[in-house]
Amino acid sequence: MLGFATMARASHRRGDGSFDRRKFLLGGGAAAGAAAGAAAAFPTPAISQGIRELKLVTSWPKGLAGLGASAERMGRSITDASGGRLRVKVFGAGEMVSAFEAFDAVSAGVADMYHSAEYYWEAKSPGFSFFAAVPFGFTADEMAAWIHFGGGQQLWDELSAGFGVKGLLSTNTGVQMGGWFTKEVHGPDSYKGLRYRMPGLGGEVLRRLGSVVVALPGGEIIPALKSGAIDASEWVGPWNDLVLGLHKVSKYYYYPGFHEPGTVLSTGVNKKLWDSFSGEDRKMLATVAAAEYTTSLAEFNANNARALRQLADDKSIEIRRFDDALLEALGRASEEVVAEIGHKDPMTRRIYESYIAFRGLSQRWAELAERGFLNARHSTLASKG
Amino acid sequence: MLGFATMARASHRRGDGSFDRRKFLLGGGAAAGAAAGAAAAFPTPAISQGIRELKLVTSWPKGLAGLGASAERMGRSITDASGGRLRVKVFGAGEMVSAFEAFDAVSAGVADMYHSAEYYWEAKSPGFSFFAAVPFGFTADEMAAWIHFGGGQQLWDELSAGFGVKGLLSTNTGVQMGGWFTKEVHGPDSYKGLRYRMPGLGGEVLRRLGSVVVALPGGEIIPALKSGAIDASEWVGPWNDLVLGLHKVSKYYYYPGFHEPGTVLSTGVNKKLWDSFSGEDRKMLATVAAAEYTTSLAEFNANNARALRQLADDKSIEIRRFDDALLEALGRASEEVVAEIGHKDPMTRRIYESYIAFRGLSQRWAELAERGFLNARHSTLASKG
Repeated sequence: MLGFATMARASHRRGDGSFDRRKFLLGGGAAAGAAAGAAAAFPTPAISQGIRELKLVTSWPKGLAGLGASAERMGRSITDASGGRLRVKVFGAGEMVSAFEAFDAVSAGVADMYHSAEYYWEAKSPGFSFFAAVPFGFTADEMAAWIHFGGGQQLWDELSAGFGVKGLLSTNTGVQMGGWFTKEVHGPDSYKGLRYRMPGLGGEVLRRLGSVVVALPGGEIIPALKSGAIDASEWVGPWNDLVLGLHKVSKYYYYPGFHEPGTVLSTGVNKKLWDSFSGEDRKMLATVAAAEYTTSLAEFNANNARALRQLADDKSIEIRRFDDALLEALGRASEEVVAEIGHKDPMTRRIYESYIAFRGLSQRWAELAERGFLNARHSTLASKG
Repeated sequence: MLGFATMARASHRRGDGSFDRRKFLLGGGAAAGAAAGAAAAFPTPAISQGIRELKLVTSWPKGLAGLGASAERMGRSITDASGGRLRVKVFGAGEMVSAFEAFDAVSAGVADMYHSAEYYWEAKSPGFSFFAAVPFGFTADEMAAWIHFGGGQQLWDELSAGFGVKGLLSTNTGVQMGGWFTKEVHGPDSYKGLRYRMPGLGGEVLRRLGSVVVALPGGEIIPALKSGAIDASEWVGPWNDLVLGLHKVSKYYYYPGFHEPGTVLSTGVNKKLWDSFSGEDRKMLATVAAAEYTTSLAEFNANNARALRQLADDKSIEIRRFDDALLEALGRASEEVVAEIGHKDPMTRRIYESYIAFRGLSQRWAELAERGFLNARHSTLASKG
């Protein structure tokens, strides 16, 4: 999980400028659902000669590899696909609202759309996490199958409508990496006392194994690994990790990223705005978002594959797989954590039950399909290097 | 691989009605490249009050689960996304031209677009197979990564332009199954003399293992398995196989489908028509095609997962994995076959080299990502059933 959220959360806690703006915009507090309900503000996109300007706020620095770029590509696609009728203006995190305020801004109609990750809204409802990533959950393809053909979108619509938002799948990072370690790990015992930077549900899983979970914004990870203040940190995958420079301060690169096996970044649209669109425009937005899902995942996979080769060629780095005993312990703790959040309220429970049932089906199918084939190809071609 | 192509090819060979129509339309013969070059016919979509009607010919019976449905959904999306300006009329196989004539019809401008699989045009250039599926090749996600961010689209454009066509990725069936067998197979020796229905490059791989490869259209597979005329047949995956009824005439269902690990169905557009579109319309068509890639793959995965459960609950069926020795032999023969077609001409060689280099990168990344994660999730959750 990226640290922008952590950064935003931390600054929110500190009550700095972005916190004040949040209070100003939304009356403060985490009760955004109520705030959205109370907010009379109807989004009024700039209309001039039939042209509407749509404000798209994001949780990423503008142009950030993979994430920011995906939001901007999608904005251009909407502008193009509408023949210039819907002009999307993309705001990087902090330009209009801070990373963590994107949902509230769209909910209240201050912005028209956001590009973010649903697990950032877990304080509003734990159900949101299931539409981004949960430990040992769906891969990118499985998520799309559940959302589009497994009842996922209906549940998401029901959850988001309560906050005045309509959500769409629009980006996927693919499988993330387990993270960078300054020392080797063997079995679950080596996680006891391990100082590990990992936000979200993955962090909660590590706590169950006795790790000291640290929240650090992206910019503070490298000094912390260097000084020995932390022993390990996850970020995204080879492409983003290489850009951040994590390979320069830690030797061991572990996989797989059990905590985020296919993280969705979504596009949220103010619900009143969405309802005001013609059926054709709604269809167009859904089409652009689905296209971006293919494009973004392709971009992450291609660039991760290239960055991995670069890392593999670096003799100072060792790429390691978490051992079976450790994965087993992480899996057990993940199932506990996900089940606990899945039972917090009736709406989340329905989402959890649908998700878990579909994961059972997908898991069985993957055994024959993706997993079955990839293992066969690996055994056959591995000798060729 | 579906048998519609086989059906079309067989009837073409028999010189029946569709063969005559093909001769009538295109001057006959397999030299479609030359035919396209010679054809002066510029596609003239029906234009009335700024509305263009686009004829989309397909290689599937209309409404066929997964494939025909994907072509029709895409046609509707183009109509919707263009605000009704571009009206797509979808023709099932045989309605305008037969399944195997789709490319020639679009090349010559008789139809505007096709929805088909590029390996059907292997007689025009072996390079086309790399844009559909090759044995032990790309999964759906890897193919999108290569096409969109690995140089694949540029090579495809160069190949197709020679035939007056512009190709787009638009549908993916996901990993296919190895097929239905009336008897168990153990190791490569059991493939000697095995009468196996498998078209295309997969069939050529089986020939190297000593199998008797049989070409049969879809409708003739069930009687052939029932009578013992063949021992095995592949089709698509659980969803389509269940609809066809293969589970009623054979006991053993083998995986993985090494021969088609993520079959692309593509949309071909007449190149002159493509060039005549505005930049916005070209972008719109590319967006619709990329969206359909997400949607179709999600539909196949969701329905395959559900159909698999139904098959797994059927006590008369045994789902089996090809054993390691057999997969190893299939892998070796696949590499030979793919390398041979990859060296047939300079254009194909460039495609082959790009494909194989990108597969090397993808294979390494999959080990950490999809394969690494799916294996970890399998070990952890398998005990839960």
